[in-house]
Order: sequence, then structure tokens, then C-alpha cells
Amino acid sequence: MVRVGVIGYGYWGPNLVRNFSEAPGCEVAAVSDLSQDRLSTLKARYPAVRTTTDYQTLLADPATDLVIIATPVSTHFKLAMEALQAGKHVLVEKPMTTTSEESRKLIAEAEKRKKQLFVDHTFVYTGAVRKMAELVSSGDLGEIYYFDSTRVNLGLFQHDVNVIWDLAVHDLSILQNIISEEPVAVSATAISHVKNQPENIAYITLFFRSSLIAHFHVNWLAPVKVRKMLIGGSKKMIVYDDIELSEKVKIYDKGVALATDPEKIQQLKIGYRSGDMWAPQIALTEALQVEAKHLVDCIERGARPLTGGQAGLRVVRCLEAATASARERGRLVELS
Amino acid sequence: MVRVGVIGYGYWGPNLVRNFSEAPGCEVAAVSDLSQDRLSTLKARYPAVRTTTDYQTLLADPATDLVIIATPVSTHFKLAMEALQAGKHVLVEKPMTTTSEESRKLIAEAEKRKKQLFVDHTFVYTGAVRKMAELVSSGDLGEIYYFDSTRVNLGLFQHDVNVIWDLAVHDLSILQNIISEEPVAVSATAISHVKNQPENIAYITLFFRSSLIAHFHVNWLAPVKVRKMLIGGSKKMIVYDDIELSEKVKIYDKGVALATDPEKIQQLKIGYRSGDMWAPQIALTEALQVEAKHLVDCIERGARPLTGGQAGLRVVRCLEAATASARERGRLVELS
Amino acid sequence: MVRVGVIGYGYWGPNLVRNFSEAPGCEVAAVSDLSQDRLSTLKARYPAVRTTTDYQTLLADPATDLVIIATPVSTHFKLAMEALQAGKHVLVEKPMTTTSEESRKLIAEAEKRKKQLFVDHTFVYTGAVRKMAELVSSGDLGEIYYFDSTRVNLGLFQHDVNVIWDLAVHDLSILQNIISEEPVAVSATAISHVKNQPENIAYITLFFRSSLIAHFHVNWLAPVKVRKMLIGGSKKMIVYDDIELSEKVKIYDKGVALATDPEKIQQLKIGYRSGDMWAPQIALTEALQVEAKHLVDCIERGARPLTGGQAGLRVVRCLEAATASARERGRLVELS
Amino acid sequence: MVRVGVIGYGYWGPNLVRNFSEAPGCEVAAVSDLSQDRLSTLKARYPAVRTTTDYQTLLADPATDLVIIATPVSTHFKLAMEALQAGKHVLVEKPMTTTSEESRKLIAEAEKRKKQLFVDHTFVYTGAVRKMAELVSSGDLGEIYYFDSTRVNLGLFQHDVNVIWDLAVHDLSILQNIISEEPVAVSATAISHVKNQPENIAYITLFFRSSLIAHFHVNWLAPVKVRKMLIGGSKKMIVYDDIELSEKVKIYDKGVALATDPEKIQQLKIGYRSGDMWAPQIALTEALQVEAKHLVDCIERGARPLTGGQAGLRVVRCLEAATASARERGRLVELS
Repeated sequence: MVRVGVIGYGYWGPNLVRNFSEAPGCEVAAVSDLSQDRLSTLKARYPAVRTTTDYQTLLADPATDLVIIATPVSTHFKLAMEALQAGKHVLVEKPMTTTSEESRKLIAEAEKRKKQLFVDHTFVYTGAVRKMAELVSSGDLGEIYYFDSTRVNLGLFQHDVNVIWDLAVHDLSILQNIISEEPVAVSATAISHVKNQPENIAYITLFFRSSLIAHFHVNWLAPVKVRKMLIGGSKKMIVYDDIELSEKVKIYDKGVALATDPEKIQQLKIGYRSGDMWAPQIALTEALQVEAKHLVDCIERGARPLTGGQAGLRVVRCLEAATASARERGRLVELS
Repeated sequence: MVRVGVIGYGYWGPNLVRNFSEAPGCEVAAVSDLSQDRLSTLKARYPAVRTTTDYQTLLADPATDLVIIATPVSTHFKLAMEALQAGKHVLVEKPMTTTSEESRKLIAEAEKRKKQLFVDHTFVYTGAVRKMAELVSSGDLGEIYYFDSTRVNLGLFQHDVNVIWDLAVHDLSILQNIISEEPVAVSATAISHVKNQPENIAYITLFFRSSLIAHFHVNWLAPVKVRKMLIGGSKKMIVYDDIELSEKVKIYDKGVALATDPEKIQQLKIGYRSGDMWAPQIALTEALQVEAKHLVDCIERGARPLTGGQAGLRVVRCLEAATASARERGRLVELS
Repeated sequence: MVRVGVIGYGYWGPNLVRNFSEAPGCEVAAVSDLSQDRLSTLKARYPAVRTTTDYQTLLADPATDLVIIATPVSTHFKLAMEALQAGKHVLVEKPMTTTSEESRKLIAEAEKRKKQLFVDHTFVYTGAVRKMAELVSSGDLGEIYYFDSTRVNLGLFQHDVNVIWDLAVHDLSILQNIISEEPVAVSATAISHVKNQPENIAYITLFFRSSLIAHFHVNWLAPVKVRKMLIGGSKKMIVYDDIELSEKVKIYDKGVALATDPEKIQQLKIGYRSGDMWAPQIALTEALQVEAKHLVDCIERGARPLTGGQAGLRVVRCLEAATASARERGRLVELS
Repeated sequence: MVRVGVIGYGYWGPNLVRNFSEAPGCEVAAVSDLSQDRLSTLKARYPAVRTTTDYQTLLADPATDLVIIATPVSTHFKLAMEALQAGKHVLVEKPMTTTSEESRKLIAEAEKRKKQLFVDHTFVYTGAVRKMAELVSSGDLGEIYYFDSTRVNLGLFQHDVNVIWDLAVHDLSILQNIISEEPVAVSATAISHVKNQPENIAYITLFFRSSLIAHFHVNWLAPVKVRKMLIGGSKKMIVYDDIELSEKVKIYDKGVALATDPEKIQQLKIGYRSGDMWAPQIALTEALQVEAKHLVDCIERGARPLTGGQAGLRVVRCLEAATASARERGRLVELS
């Protein structure tokens, strides 16, 4: 039985508590938060969970196996480090830390302590992303040529991070889960429209050694929520729309190829899509439930997680590079 | 009565001939094309139109008032220059020329000859773009903060130009028709996936003196056709989807503003759009028909056209700069 | 403080318990169910709620004010009658009973006992239905000419009732909440495709004294879930799509009128909608939460509920008549 | 070479002339219409076609092989009969005649004269309907259980026929092309909302000897154009949306079957569709072009057409029965 302590019961905390409570082989033993009000709300629902405003109580409890850190990004490093030093396994919210340097230190500490260090890249555990990863790794799509994502939100500002760290973190975690090749350079552009606030709209291009190109459009100030990806392969292509209820993942039976047959060219000119389309039924299980089971399993069997510290670090490096590039209006930043 | 001669009867030619035939105050007198087959097809439908494989016959005919150039881009400059020198008004397909230098020369020649020089930025004449231009210029949207466009096609390669010159030309012509501020710098990224072929996917950011940012995603190798724009203003925002049959232009009654009211924030978190939405009925008249009438009117009254040589030049300058930036992976190129 | 007892913890029970637990002025004191497993699940989530497999314990408890009956339809009458006779206010799941005779008896008993009798027509409390009721009652739509609904499900059979009682019950409750005129006759057709099972597809027309016509298509065996209504008025028309995330209710600024202007006729021929469209932002509060608050308020102030016994009876009468008509392949059944 | 004479150059006439002009082995020789204006418009576009205001000139011309009748329904019988009697092959617009009696007479006359009698059920020649017919006849869908169609228009009234004759004619022609079993009885309901005008909204159920049920919703006064069909089979199901540009025909890999597996039931409860989905690429050739080639071929080889007189008659019988049933509010009308 994995006993879990959760630090932070804000926006995401309730989802973490609910899912880790329901995951087999696991129980939420304690939750800390600075707000007594939030702890009271929790207590009404989960009378058996201990609550505290002092996270160190949690770390000090020898019965705690796994500490989940669901606090603002700027506190991730300090809290995760203390938890590792207290001999706990740790699950950190995304993005893992505010610098890649901090991420490296956490990884080193976890290795030294022989503890698991997880990062909560939740999207990786959705039915849709797992299906796409399966399709790409099976070779069905052929060589992957581009990965394009649009992720725009409705006027919701974060004040401690910019839109890159808030939204592109999802795209980067999905990208690296689906495609094994690592990016070598970044060019990004971004702007802030609200005085003294971080950048609220950004465009990020990732370059690779191969001819793969990846691009993310992230925006906090859109009139409609969009979550859309195009993945183009030499044999097939994918459209993934996470807002779509019934057909999240569509696979088009047509790759990135030149049409030379005149009839086919005419069809492409007047048509709105190319090739037959297939939309597999996607598992509807809540991603965080899949993730909780996987992490408990990793702890119990000492297995490598799908979303461990290295995955967190790779994402943070790209976020750093993209922010740096954007502040120099697109200057190419190499990822050494 | 404006008598029209058309050079080039390929993909777009038939649309030009049909619309200029039907426009009041105007008739298509002659068409030239290198292919006798195409001319036969034309002749079967329009027995009264003279046909020739030698465009110089057209230019030599004193009865021709307006010469339309619908040939590959690389020939635009030469043909337009000869037509102007022959004393004709000229309508050139977009993009106007392959360099801004050529565009400037054509503008100078037209001024010298006191002839009209038009560029066929067809989209500008659609009901949707006219409605958006009206909304922006009325101040209804407030200050414009971003202009984002996605324009992706189904595997249709041009061999003489890259995807920027083929597709972003539309976005640039729409942008400059809707927004009066001119861009000052460009950062673009692009890649080619087919050996020895021009770039087939590109991402272009335009910077302005104000905090406006514009971005275009253009792609020849997508599984689905997309024609979608987001325009964000400080008071209202627009979503324009040209593929959508019944609601091309949607106006959201919510500007680029921070939500501070907690209930509103909750609504934004769980919702999929912000503010009431209004979709005005859009005029369905074919754009080329509107354009033909407007150009005839400009010729007859000597008025300034909506899409004259200067408009063509501004677009070509951005295309040049974007291509240059993309070939250096995002390096900022100033538009002097 | 209204203390609530819930009989039945199957599909809908968890939603009832959650919402009545969270409604102010109200607490869920006890739940009964025949399955000890379900009660254990409940207990894990709500340790403070008493559980029992004998519903009579609930009725016998003088502390219970309101009894909610969320059991199969065939048991509604017996349980509701016993609860009323035990001096409780009662909320019955929809449809209220299996016959209009039973509904009448419950209404009489509630009146005699001076207790509230509610029926759980949940849809009536959604933001979308409240908005439509407001639009219709304000006269904005003009005279209402038709009300058309399609409600189709994915292969989910009920075994104790047919598709009319399972799905059309929603349409009838929405209809009567939006439109005050009552239907006078019914013609329905239906069929069963699975041996020894109730009808799984049905089409129901309701006639009114005015020229209003209402029609419901209900189907258990569809490939896609559909929840769509058209409401046609002499001044404006509504499209309500409950599956749609961002634009559930669309109002078209064009009533049921003959187009006589030739240009307008041409527009209608080539267009895909008529008039400007407006999609108001809809309140996203969960319907059952709105309902719980309303019912608690009715109990405390003795007010008339939006969905009381008479509303339940009117729906049951139509369900009876539709089933009778369908079994004689469309024979007109008058609603006296 | 089949020489064609067209009677009537109103709404549909221009499409007929264009397509029969372009079909190989066929030419439009003459067109008659009562309006000299319309004939002038035609003449401007097709200078080689003879025009007349007297249709008898057309019939008298021995060079005419095929007469196309594209006039109001009430004149179809008289004109088609005269054309057959003049020894011509005949293509009649749909619906074929105003009574089944008249249709029978035309069929008899055509047989006597050994001439082809075609009816213009255009939809039958679309890529979408051909694909569905192929899927059903191959047995891929299993036994067909229901056929449901919604076809609603934007305020466009016909004055000589009601909405059943105007719109349900399409559904009936598609139904009989896809499904070989013939209906045995009809129950329909309808209403008129504009004084002294024919019924503008109607609901029609067709019964069959098997457990197949068909239903059509037709409506002239809707805010949005809808063209949607559901076809439910024991093995697979189809959704056909003719307004949809890129995915007109979707096939769901799930038949009309009871879910008994609890996990599957849960999936159906929270999901929005059942089974994998496949959207084959549909041929985009204009239906009337396919039809013209087919009819020319039937004339030249004496073959049986896909849409001959018998097909026209079967449709007219259902239209008659549906109108009769609707005028008695759903009374069952047997199709002997």
C-alpha cells in the first residue's frame, strides 16, 4: 500500500486527491495547504485524510511513501528537494521546475537516494495520446515530417509564468512521448498585451536533425478554446482535436506525398481532405486514474516511469530555450 | 465598355473569363494561352472570344483596354511591363512579382503611363473579409492585439514558388486590407519535405510598432483543408473560418482582458468560449464578381482601387522577408 | 435544514447525493439501496451518511423531511405513496409513474397531506432550457409554429420501459416548460428490433389547438448521440444542440415567413442559414444543483415548484397516449 | 450522338443544359421556355443552342432524340406524354407526375413506343448515395433496421406542391435506391403555417413487412439547412450528412445490438458514439454529370436505367399516400 501525502490543494489538488484515493494499492493519508478553508472543504469530503498547514509535518511522517507537489511552479524545486531528502518518492506538477539546472539537481538527488522522481505530464496518459504514440511507434504513419499544435485558452492568465511555461509544456510532453527524436534548436516569438504581465501569446518552432519540424501556437486570450494537433507522416496523417467529443483522433490514409495523377490533383483542388479517414474509438478512462495506477506500479516494482525526471527536464530545457528566443524575436537557440 | 484581354487560361483563367464576361460594362474580347487544347475548350463555351497562342496579338490590339495576367509568377513582371508599355491597364495575379524591385518598377511604369495597375487579391472582395474590415475600422473590436491565420492545403505543390509565396500571399493581402498599421519586421521558419522542392510548410511572425502581432501557418501537405483566422481585439474578438458554410465570421463579445471576478474565472476554466457570440449573415456574391465590377469602375472613373500596385508591393516585400528569414531559421528581418 | 433520504443508489443516485449534499440548507442523512456493494461505495465517499437496505427505515425516521425516489419506474408509485403517507415531501425520478392514474393518486395524496410532490425533470433546470423559456415567454420568437427534437442514444436499452418512456420524457418536460399551450392529440409510430424487448425507436407528433406542431424522434440504437431541437417562431428561430460545447443555443434572426424578394430567395437557395445568428453565453451551473436549491426553497417557503406533480402527470399522459398510438401504427389518440 | 431538347429553363434548367452539353456522346440542340428573358440569358452563354417559346417546335424536330422536362410538376404528365407520342426518349424532373395514375400511363406509353422513360432522381447519382448503396448491398451493414432522414430548408416555399412532394421525393428516391424491400404502409403528419399555402412541415413513417422502419422529417421553414440520414443495420451503421464538406458518409463499426458487458455499457453512457468510425473518400464528380452519361449510355445500348419510370412511380405512390395520411393526422394508409 503506497501512502500519499499531497502538498497544495488548489486548482489541481482535488483531482489528485480523488484519483489517488481511488487508485488500487494506494491511499491519500495527508494533505497540506496554506489555506485552512481549502483544508476544511477537503475534510468534509474525506474525513479520514489528515490535514495540516505545515507541509513539513507531511515530510516528517515516516508513513508517507509518495509526496505529490501541486503548488506554484516557483516552489517546486525547494519542496521536491526537501521531499527527496526526507526519503520520499516524489511526483511534481508540470513544469517540473523553473530552470533546467534545478531539474538536473532533482534528478541527481533522486538517483542518489534511489527514489522515484515523477512529473505529472497528465496528457501522456489520455486514451488519445496513447493511441497516437502507438500509431507512430508502429510505423503506420511512416517517417514523421511535422507536428503542429494549437492550444489557446479563454483569458486565463497565470501571473508567475508566461504562456509558454503554462501551455506549451503540454505540447512538449505529448511530443516527446510520441516522437523519440529530440529537438536540436528553437526559434520562438511572443508578446505581452497586458502591462507588466508575462507573454500571453507565443509561437514556437522546434528544429530536429531530420527534416521533422514542430510548431506550437499557445495563447491565453482567445475567444474560443482550441486543442488541435496535426501530425504529418510520409504514409499517413493524424488530426487530434481534444475538444471534439466523439472523434478526437482521426487518421487520414494519405501521407505527405506529391500528387502527380491529374485526376487526383483535381480531387485535391476541390476536396476538403485527402484519403480515407479512420477514427478509432478512444479509451475514455480519466488520464489521472491511468497515471496514478502506473506510478503506484512503478514504486512497487521499481520500474521506469513513462513520465520521470528526465522527461520533465527535457521539457524544461525547451521552455527555457523558447522563452529566451522569444525575448530576442526569434533568434535561434541551440539545445546542446 | 471595358474590353478585356486575358493572358493565361490555366487553373484560374476560366474563373476570370466567366466573371469579367458577366460583369456589367465589360467584355472579354480575347484570350491567349500556349495550349491550343485549352483555347479550344474556351472557344466551345465562348464562341465570340478571340483566341491566340501569341499574347502579343492581344497587346497589339488597340481595342484592348485591360490586360489580365494569369500566368506563372515568374512571368508576371515581363508580361505586365509589356502590357503597360503597350498602354493597357493591367490586372496581375497574386503574388504580383517575384521581387519587390520588380513590383516597384511596375508601379513606376503605371504611374508614368497613367494606367491602372491592379493586383488580384481576390479574398479582399469576399463578404467575409469586407465584414471584418468594417468591424475593425468601426472600432468595434477596440485595439487589435493579434491576427492569427492557419491556411493549409491537401498535398498540392507549386513547383515555381514555395508555400509562403503560394499561400501566405492570401493572409498578407487580407491582413493589410483589415489593419492599416504596417509590419516592421518578420521572423519565419520553414522546411521542405520533398527533395529538390521548395519549402512546403512555413510559420511566419510579423512584428509591428504597436503590440500587434500577426502569425501565419501555411502548409501544403495537410490531411484536411483549413482556412481559419483569429483576430483578437481589446473589446471583441473574431473567428473567421472560410470552410464553414453557414457561420464564416463569428464575433465574440469579449475582448482581450484579464478576468478578475472569481465566478468569471471559474466560467472560463470550464467553458469553451467567452462572451456572447454573434454571426452576421455574410453576402454570398462571388468575390471575383465584386472585384470585376470594382475594377471596371476604377478604370471608368479613374478611382483608386482597393487592390492596386502598392498593395501588391507591400505583400511581395513581406513574402521576400519571410523567405529570407526562414532560410536562416527565424533570423529577424527588418522591413525598412 | 432539509434532511434528505434517498431511495435507490443506481445510475442517477450518486448525482442526487452529491448535489443535495452540496446544496445550501440541505443535507443527505440516509440512503437505501438493495445492493450492499453500492452502499459500501457510497459509504467510502460519504462516511457521514447512514445507509440501509430497507427503505422503510428511512420513511420511519421522523428526522427525514424529503424523500427522493430514484428506483425503477415500476416502483415509483408504491414508494412515493408510502413516503407521502409517512408525512414526507417527495421528489420522484422521471417519468413520475407508469400510468396517469397513479400520478393523479400521488397528486391527491400530496394535496391531502399538504406535502410537496416534485418530479425530477432535470433538463428544465439547465442554463440552455432556462434561456429558451425566457426567449419564448418574452415574445422574442413571436408565435411558436413548431418544436422539433431528436434525442438518440448509443445502444443503451432499458428493459422495463420503451424508448418513449425513457427518452421522450425529456422532450415533453422541456416542451411544457417552454410553451404554455397543451397538446390535444398524439400520433406516434415505433418499432422494436430486439426480440421480446420494448420499442427502441419511436416518432411522436403532438397536435395543438393552434397551428403549433411538436415532433420527437427518440432512438436507443444510433451510432452517434444526438440531442438537438429546432424551435420555429413567426419572428425568430432557435437551434439547441445539447452536445455542442460552446454554442448550445443559437437564435436566428429570421422567423417563419415567406421570402418574396428575388434576391433574398436566391440567398436562401445558395445559403445554409437565414438571418443573423446570436449565441448567448449559457450559465454552466450543473442543472441538478440549481434544482436542489429550488426544491429546498419550495419546501422552506411552501412555494410552487417549477416541476411539481401536475407537470409530472402531463408528461405521463402524453407518454401513455404516444405508446397507445404507436401500437396502432399512428392512430390519432386524443388527450382529453 | 444523342440530341437533347430541354423544356423549361428555370431553377434547374441551367444545370441540365450545362451537364448535358458537357456529357460525351450528347449535345443540347434546343431549349424552350415561356420566358424570352431566360432564353436570352441562355443564348448569351450557349450561342449554338436553338431557343423557342413553343415547346412543340422541339417535339416536332425529328433530330431531337431525348426530351428533358424541367417544368412545374403539374405539367409533367401532359408534356411527357406528348414527347413520348412524338417518338422521343423522355427525362422528367422529379416528382414524375402529380398522381400515380399518370405515372402508370406514361410507363405504358413508353413501353408501347419502346422509348426510354427516365426520371431525374439526381441524388441517386451522387458519390455518397452510390457508396451507401454499395455498402448496403454488400451486406456489410447486416440487416437494415431503420432509415431516418432530416431534410429541412430555409423558408423556400413551393406554391404548387406541399413540402412532401418537394423534399421527401429525394428521400424516397434515395431509400429505394439503397434498399430493395418496398414499403407496405405509411403514416404521416403535417401542418401549414402560412394561410392558403400547402403543408410546409411534415413527418412521414414508412412501414415494411420486415422490422425495417423509415422516417423522413421535411420542413421548408427552418433556420438552418439540414440534410442528414442515419441508417441502422444489425452489423454497422451509417451517418450521411450532405452538408458536411469533408466527411459526408461515416460508417460506424457497431450494429444495432444490445450491450451486455458492464464496461461497454459504461462506455456507452459517457461516450458520444459507438465503435470505430470510417469515412471513405467519396467521388466528387457532379451527380448530374454521372446521370447524363448513364442516360446517354442507356439510350445507346437500350439498357435499363437506374432511375426509370417504375422508380418514379414508386416514389409518387408514397408521396400520394403520405399526403393522404397527413390530411387525416397520421391515419395508416396501406400501399397495395
